[in-house]
Amino acid sequence: MKIVRTVEEVRAIRPSLGRLGFVPTMGALHDGHMSLVSLAADRCDAVAASIFVNPTQFAPHEDLALYPRPIEADLARLEAANVALAFLPSPQEIYPAGFDTRIEVGTIADRLEGAVRPGHFSGVATVVAKLFNIVTPDVAFFGQKDVQQTRVMRQLVRDLDIPVEIVIGPTVREPDGLALSSRNIYLSEAERGEASALARGLKAAEEAFAGGVRDATALRRLAEAPIRQTMGIIDYISVADPDTLEEVDLIGPNGAVLSLAVRFGPTRLLDNVILG
Amino acid sequence: MKIVRTVEEVRAIRPSLGRLGFVPTMGALHDGHMSLVSLAADRCDAVAASIFVNPTQFAPHEDLALYPRPIEADLARLEAANVALAFLPSPQEIYPAGFDTRIEVGTIADRLEGAVRPGHFSGVATVVAKLFNIVTPDVAFFGQKDVQQTRVMRQLVRDLDIPVEIVIGPTVREPDGLALSSRNIYLSEAERGEASALARGLKAAEEAFAGGVRDATALRRLAEAPIRQTMGIIDYISVADPDTLEEVDLIGPNGAVLSLAVRFGPTRLLDNVILG
Repeated sequence: MKIVRTVEEVRAIRPSLGRLGFVPTMGALHDGHMSLVSLAADRCDAVAASIFVNPTQFAPHEDLALYPRPIEADLARLEAANVALAFLPSPQEIYPAGFDTRIEVGTIADRLEGAVRPGHFSGVATVVAKLFNIVTPDVAFFGQKDVQQTRVMRQLVRDLDIPVEIVIGPTVREPDGLALSSRNIYLSEAERGEASALARGLKAAEEAFAGGVRDATALRRLAEAPIRQTMGIIDYISVADPDTLEEVDLIGPNGAVLSLAVRFGPTRLLDNVILG
Repeated sequence: MKIVRTVEEVRAIRPSLGRLGFVPTMGALHDGHMSLVSLAADRCDAVAASIFVNPTQFAPHEDLALYPRPIEADLARLEAANVALAFLPSPQEIYPAGFDTRIEVGTIADRLEGAVRPGHFSGVATVVAKLFNIVTPDVAFFGQKDVQQTRVMRQLVRDLDIPVEIVIGPTVREPDGLALSSRNIYLSEAERGEASALARGLKAAEEAFAGGVRDATALRRLAEAPIRQTMGIIDYISVADPDTLEEVDLIGPNGAVLSLAVRFGPTRLLDNVILG
């Protein structure tokens, strides 16, 4: 595995990599990330991964400084998974002096996470566009767990005609259902015990949907019930159009995304299921 | 010459074109455009040109509907210049239903033309990023006449790591000095007679700079004098840092860009010289 830190080095290596799959990450790699690396290896000649804790997608009060950075362990996991290229740029490499451009992906970025975290998806879209231009992959892989991010990525690539195929890998879960996230390590033992309520709520709603329930309010209530029995504070529970993420009242033939964000102390957990 | 109207057709042809030079235009081609095509032919294996009157860079009160579209003559000129690929997308091909992304290139886009035409450079940057992603040229060519646009392009490409080299071709002028522009045809005969005052003013300032004058106010006055003797209304005369386009009082070792915009009736004319 080549470990490189500059744009120039990536560009020098790129031509030797053939059809390239790319997994952009912020590090603190877990089995969710590694499932995307596996998907990429299955579909491409070679896999590149980036580890970059992108400052522009954090608000000033958020956890940029605290965000876990276990670089040695991350590199060992990537190496063991036969990743060909690990790109670990510095913030200065990505945002040199004079950097002054941003990409705004429109209304899909304003809802849900975008409403709670203004500017977040502009930071994500801009850094991913840069990484795509640096790595020039054929296919890029994102996790279903961050469902709005997957929609923002599709909008970005479609709107700017970026010649990269986007593939979404399924959410990987702990045995009790908790979706894997680099932020799960922030949870106290008590919070960790309660956090499986998110998956239980989603599962209840999913089963009701499978049984024929199409009313969004009813499904939201089913998802909400187990979370109400914890200390978690619900930021939102959304039943939304799968393309636009606009809230729906009644789920039609296109199905819906049921997504939620719940805070346990300072830790925000996200999860979702696709209905239909 | 292949004439194509869809993204898919461009992508199908692109691999056969080798090292590709690209001249994005809004059509109404003149010798300025064709000098860029020549530059591209000198430096690359093949040349692609686009003709697209981009609606998002026009404000509602501007001349989008009136903008000249002599498509047959344009195609004949491109063909005669050995252009390999002419891309003439429809507005729907570039902005399909649901399109919702824009690129903002920061403070360099807010000054001068950006201050007079809010949103203009966001429209330009977004469409050029799209065209670059569609055509994937190695080198792209822009005219010095639109000097702020050239700076916005450099900022865009640098900030988003777009793997395209930007080359700026010199301004091509009429015998009396008027910079070629597709909008010159809007000028009445009387206005056309007076319009050479822009180039005369710039030349006077350029000669003073060559003679040692470094004071921006003095140079601005020299540029202004001949224009004051016409019916033209000056939008701005700027002496600015060549990288940031920030106004300067005294020209330092980096030189400056002296640029101006003058209205003759509804027609805005731009011109500039690089000092140093």
